[in-house]
Amino acid sequence: MADTASNDTSSLDAVMRSMGQRARAAAAELAQTTPKARTEGLLAMASALGDAQTDLIAANQKDLETGRAKGLTPAMMDRLALTPDRVSGIVEALREVARLADPVGAEIARWTVPSGLDIARVRTPLGVIGIIYEARPNVTADAAALCLRSGNAALLRAGSESLNSALAITTALRRGLAEAGLPEDAIQLVDTTDRAAVGAMLSGLEGSIDVIVPRGGKGLVARVQAEARVPVIGHLEGICHIYVDAAADLQKAVDLVVNAKMRRTGVCGAAETLLVDQTAAGTLLPVLAKALSEAGCQLRGDEAARALVPDMGPATETDWRTEYLDAILSVRLVDGVAGAMDHIRTYSTGHTEAIVTEDIAIAERFLAGVDAGIVMHNASTQFADGGEFGMGAEIGIATGRIHARGPVGAEQLTIFKYVVRGTGQTRP
Amino acid sequence: MADTASNDTSSLDAVMRSMGQRARAAAAELAQTTPKARTEGLLAMASALGDAQTDLIAANQKDLETGRAKGLTPAMMDRLALTPDRVSGIVEALREVARLADPVGAEIARWTVPSGLDIARVRTPLGVIGIIYEARPNVTADAAALCLRSGNAALLRAGSESLNSALAITTALRRGLAEAGLPEDAIQLVDTTDRAAVGAMLSGLEGSIDVIVPRGGKGLVARVQAEARVPVIGHLEGICHIYVDAAADLQKAVDLVVNAKMRRTGVCGAAETLLVDQTAAGTLLPVLAKALSEAGCQLRGDEAARALVPDMGPATETDWRTEYLDAILSVRLVDGVAGAMDHIRTYSTGHTEAIVTEDIAIAERFLAGVDAGIVMHNASTQFADGGEFGMGAEIGIATGRIHARGPVGAEQLTIFKYVVRGTGQTRP
Repeated sequence: MADTASNDTSSLDAVMRSMGQRARAAAAELAQTTPKARTEGLLAMASALGDAQTDLIAANQKDLETGRAKGLTPAMMDRLALTPDRVSGIVEALREVARLADPVGAEIARWTVPSGLDIARVRTPLGVIGIIYEARPNVTADAAALCLRSGNAALLRAGSESLNSALAITTALRRGLAEAGLPEDAIQLVDTTDRAAVGAMLSGLEGSIDVIVPRGGKGLVARVQAEARVPVIGHLEGICHIYVDAAADLQKAVDLVVNAKMRRTGVCGAAETLLVDQTAAGTLLPVLAKALSEAGCQLRGDEAARALVPDMGPATETDWRTEYLDAILSVRLVDGVAGAMDHIRTYSTGHTEAIVTEDIAIAERFLAGVDAGIVMHNASTQFADGGEFGMGAEIGIATGRIHARGPVGAEQLTIFKYVVRGTGQTRP
Repeated sequence: MADTASNDTSSLDAVMRSMGQRARAAAAELAQTTPKARTEGLLAMASALGDAQTDLIAANQKDLETGRAKGLTPAMMDRLALTPDRVSGIVEALREVARLADPVGAEIARWTVPSGLDIARVRTPLGVIGIIYEARPNVTADAAALCLRSGNAALLRAGSESLNSALAITTALRRGLAEAGLPEDAIQLVDTTDRAAVGAMLSGLEGSIDVIVPRGGKGLVARVQAEARVPVIGHLEGICHIYVDAAADLQKAVDLVVNAKMRRTGVCGAAETLLVDQTAAGTLLPVLAKALSEAGCQLRGDEAARALVPDMGPATETDWRTEYLDAILSVRLVDGVAGAMDHIRTYSTGHTEAIVTEDIAIAERFLAGVDAGIVMHNASTQFADGGEFGMGAEIGIATGRIHARGPVGAEQLTIFKYVVRGTGQTRP
């Protein structure tokens, strides 16, 4: 048994290494293509996906059957399901990415220095992007398309629940690439549910992967933090806070808090904790709590909040650290904007933090002082989305601190190089 | 013994953890300071350093004595030595950083989206930067100054040879911070030669370090690659190539190649491999080889190069992978620009790559196709330097692929956040 396991591992390692090498070669080829060629590739991918609708839905049926047997929740089953309409949606999303400005080759800046050298900072692809994700099948197409738009090769690892769907989608996308004369290996899917494949990707496959983009919950976060040997542009937890200041407009606060929590509870930009200014909580909180309860939201408050709204359940330390992704909201009274900022400094995951107030000075203090990818004034946290930001599609919301924060679109999947043009300058 | 070792380790761990926590707190405080306050801090650091000249030179004497006993080479001893002139140079470098534009808080972009939200991308500090370096004492001051200019706290780990000098410099810098009313813990130096401290920093100190900037040779590179659990903006090896094309101007080629290799052989931007177009090598190589030999450079060539210049030593596979940092140059004939690009693709460390040619089309093909932080046409690779690029000081040349490539100045030590200003928008 030990031998078998070891053979399995080394065979998986070999498969993964080979995928990495093919991705690297495809990335080198892609880096030499024109924006027009990449646009044609994206359109060909969209057509191929549309043509494969029957195959896609058949493959998805297998995933749905397995999911049903495994006892996935109705919400998970819904996220997993492909219908003709959803396939059309994925095809249309690819066409939208094809319409996006191609970021590669753009001159970000250009200047001349006293030595006479002409220096330009030019956008280049990152190279090979490893994407580890769960759940919805559309991520396979969206992620692959954004990688191609930015000149990168994509090495995809789908969740086991959607593997058959992801395989069918990848097969179609690769057919599109080939039809457009682009390297098929620019899009590869890891064809196994073996979790060791995730470890192999996190190791970087001997330098073949330039960056890992993880999209997932606590389990994946912990694994990435422990094992990643390559840079990570992480879309990790979103414990988003919304702070209602004493100077808030009550109706605006009700609308914003209910929308931030309840519009869709399963998205990363959904609010998970409501902070209320204690000096006005007597007025604000009962109204907010009533509106939230009527919208179907369960509340868990600290003692001070429960003193004002007694039918609220108790919140513990764990609640401040929990991304519910459900119709549950933790509630805490704080000592003004400073208290809100203190709470956020301790519990923020760096995703999106919002303040509701009519006092511009307080709003600006919050916007300047809170450290997160996105900070908002008088807007719902659910606007945390590349599309809403006008960036076209996104591969996720980065919650780390380097390279990019907030929505990660095509431009954020690039880096730059310096192009220096001289006339024979030597350095004295 | 085992117990002692384990106690030592846990005591080191506790010390490092505490340094990390204090750095995090200082970073949070720094993030709220104004550019003016940071400028005043930098000027106070410069004054404090100037005032401490006697202490600095006394501390440096201890390092020099240890170095002499250890048998450091004359070149290493020279790099290590502090003189009154060199201290003045470090003080002046701090004043220059104080004059640099402060990058924090700048709006990089601002736009309005159809929902009416006003979105700004605003520069913010990275947070806590861990810098691991070797050799020259001035790096302590330069790195600390660039971190403060960009609103970051610096956790410094100097090489053991320069520890006393680095401690004296850090003491003075912290005095300057205190005098300017800034948190002293914004600059901390690891006060031990225990190599386990490097491992602790690479672990990220339980989330206290946001990014590691390593500056060093192969040993440090390997350790960082194996152990780093936090993002790295690496200043690692610089195996820089200079390719002389058949369409090169011979005199320009001689000047550029000799300067690229021999101006200073110990810098990361020094050329390590000369690639010559085989179709013109008969004309070019003997002249280049003669000029290099006269400048004191030893050549190691492939067979084809040695056929043209028989007194050249042989180059092996190892030579293509070696950063000599010495008066040695490997030489290879290649099949035109495509052959040069192939060689560079295999052996480049992503630092600086140059082409010498009068054919603009060939030059542009090289500039577009070569993947490195810096690509150059008709310029010496020794221009790879933040100062020469007009960026003021630099903390190193990044050879990785994410966040920043090429010279890393104050701006590259920042990231951004999105500031979203609404008027009560909820997402439909």
